[in-house]
Amino acid sequence: MNARIEFFKNQIGKDKWAFDYPLMEWLKAQVLEADESHVKMQFTVEAYMLNPIGMLHGGVVATMLDELMGAAGFLLGRLTGYATINMNVDYLYPARLGEKITGEGRIIRAGKTVLHAESKLHNAGNRLLAKATSNLIATTTVLPI
Amino acid sequence: MNARIEFFKNQIGKDKWAFDYPLMEWLKAQVLEADESHVKMQFTVEAYMLNPIGMLHGGVVATMLDELMGAAGFLLGRLTGYATINMNVDYLYPARLGEKITGEGRIIRAGKTVLHAESKLHNAGNRLLAKATSNLIATTTVLPI
Amino acid sequence: MNARIEFFKNQIGKDKWAFDYPLMEWLKAQVLEADESHVKMQFTVEAYMLNPIGMLHGGVVATMLDELMGAAGFLLGRLTGYATINMNVDYLYPARLGEKITGEGRIIRAGKTVLHAESKLHNAGNRLLAKATSNLIATTTVLPI
Amino acid sequence: MNARIEFFKNQIGKDKWAFDYPLMEWLKAQVLEADESHVKMQFTVEAYMLNPIGMLHGGVVATMLDELMGAAGFLLGRLTGYATINMNVDYLYPARLGEKITGEGRIIRAGKTVLHAESKLHNAGNRLLAKATSNLIATTTVLPI
Repeated sequence: MNARIEFFKNQIGKDKWAFDYPLMEWLKAQVLEADESHVKMQFTVEAYMLNPIGMLHGGVVATMLDELMGAAGFLLGRLTGYATINMNVDYLYPARLGEKITGEGRIIRAGKTVLHAESKLHNAGNRLLAKATSNLIATTTVLPI
Repeated sequence: MNARIEFFKNQIGKDKWAFDYPLMEWLKAQVLEADESHVKMQFTVEAYMLNPIGMLHGGVVATMLDELMGAAGFLLGRLTGYATINMNVDYLYPARLGEKITGEGRIIRAGKTVLHAESKLHNAGNRLLAKATSNLIATTTVLPI
Repeated sequence: MNARIEFFKNQIGKDKWAFDYPLMEWLKAQVLEADESHVKMQFTVEAYMLNPIGMLHGGVVATMLDELMGAAGFLLGRLTGYATINMNVDYLYPARLGEKITGEGRIIRAGKTVLHAESKLHNAGNRLLAKATSNLIATTTVLPI
Repeated sequence: MNARIEFFKNQIGKDKWAFDYPLMEWLKAQVLEADESHVKMQFTVEAYMLNPIGMLHGGVVATMLDELMGAAGFLLGRLTGYATINMNVDYLYPARLGEKITGEGRIIRAGKTVLHAESKLHNAGNRLLAKATSNLIATTTVLPI
């Protein structure tokens, strides 16, 4: 088990992240599961995430989906980080204030240079709300953990 | 000039939005220009928008791009709102803490049922940072303004 | 079983299509399986499908993926047809002359107005070569079968 | 002027390609203009490119768009080739039998490792029919010209 899986497993069920990552607290992100190339998280829809008609803003949906894919790539345990080349998001159903959203991110192809990732968001009734794909490229940035 | 263009024009240069939209204040969004089917806004990169390696989080980039396309659709002045079907984001260059980002959103095809939109983000040096396309579909939700 | 499923099932294993659809013969498309909202087909890589460096052209890959999603939508058995709003293709591995490619298309969300579809291509070694997502919108075109 | 621009300029107005590329002849592709990182081509919609309801098949549209972006990358004149990571296509209007389609491909960001490209198709009435974006990654394949 690489150190990053351990790090994520230690994060399970916690509101506060072990390193400074305020965006995760803003998203009300909690880790549920973590393995090599796969992560499961929970988010809660807060009032400040809504668009003017009271739905979870599409950009916040994208932020959850992007984070899940980035985390899945991080969990590969490679020395240097990856940068997202592109992200495609499909919106299937809206989410509303107070909903708990379960997200999963997964690396589908872990090439040396390019990763292909997928992520999905489901609501408490297990309805698929949104899904995304991304391609990420290896950088030379050595990651702290 | 439809009422929404007027509404957006009244918003130019203001930090505070005239209706309750906390996400815009979180994004440090300021309207720069507004016309039918087109909007220009400025955002500022705050510490709480960063990923763990100090770059503007890809999801926050997507939020800016999504908002620009939604606003451009809103500026058409149609009675009922649009829901985003999908969004594709391409990331060209990163942005860092304190940067001012200029964004533009535009409706490319204003069909009765489906809108096709584009948006772009540039930094202060006029470098293209990220771009997006979306397709939006007419809903039956009557908008307040 | 709607008439279209029956139509596709009659097509299983045949080189020649029962209606005039030359592009399917060009793709060397054979139906393998067909159900409501799902189809499986086989294609063969011919010399005329290659790019100048001897790989299956990305556009031909896209044609296979698009056809699989269109066919899956057709298999819903609805009176009127659907038009593709957008298609996103991810290329994971190349294919070469003579390869047999197995493709699957599936409707993920069958809304009244918008369909969300996915398709995938695998080679004979069950390696995922390419994948796609599309959103399709209901038209008023009444289909012949 | 690099050798590839010269090659493409020699191709202007010709039905037959100077190297063996049958897919271009199938697409009825003719080069109209070529510069570093930019190409303009014309295609003609033939009966064998249609879907069963008599429209230009979405996959053939994607093939034109993909080829335009690949050609624009080729025109950069770099020693080794690029492989397409992903392609996103948006379909705005259909095309029918016999239509002449003008396509343009352009490299928007020519990074050392990743190219970002766009392409567009217009009909004879200058209506935007479809548009695409792609990201391409440098390979080690040395190109013949």
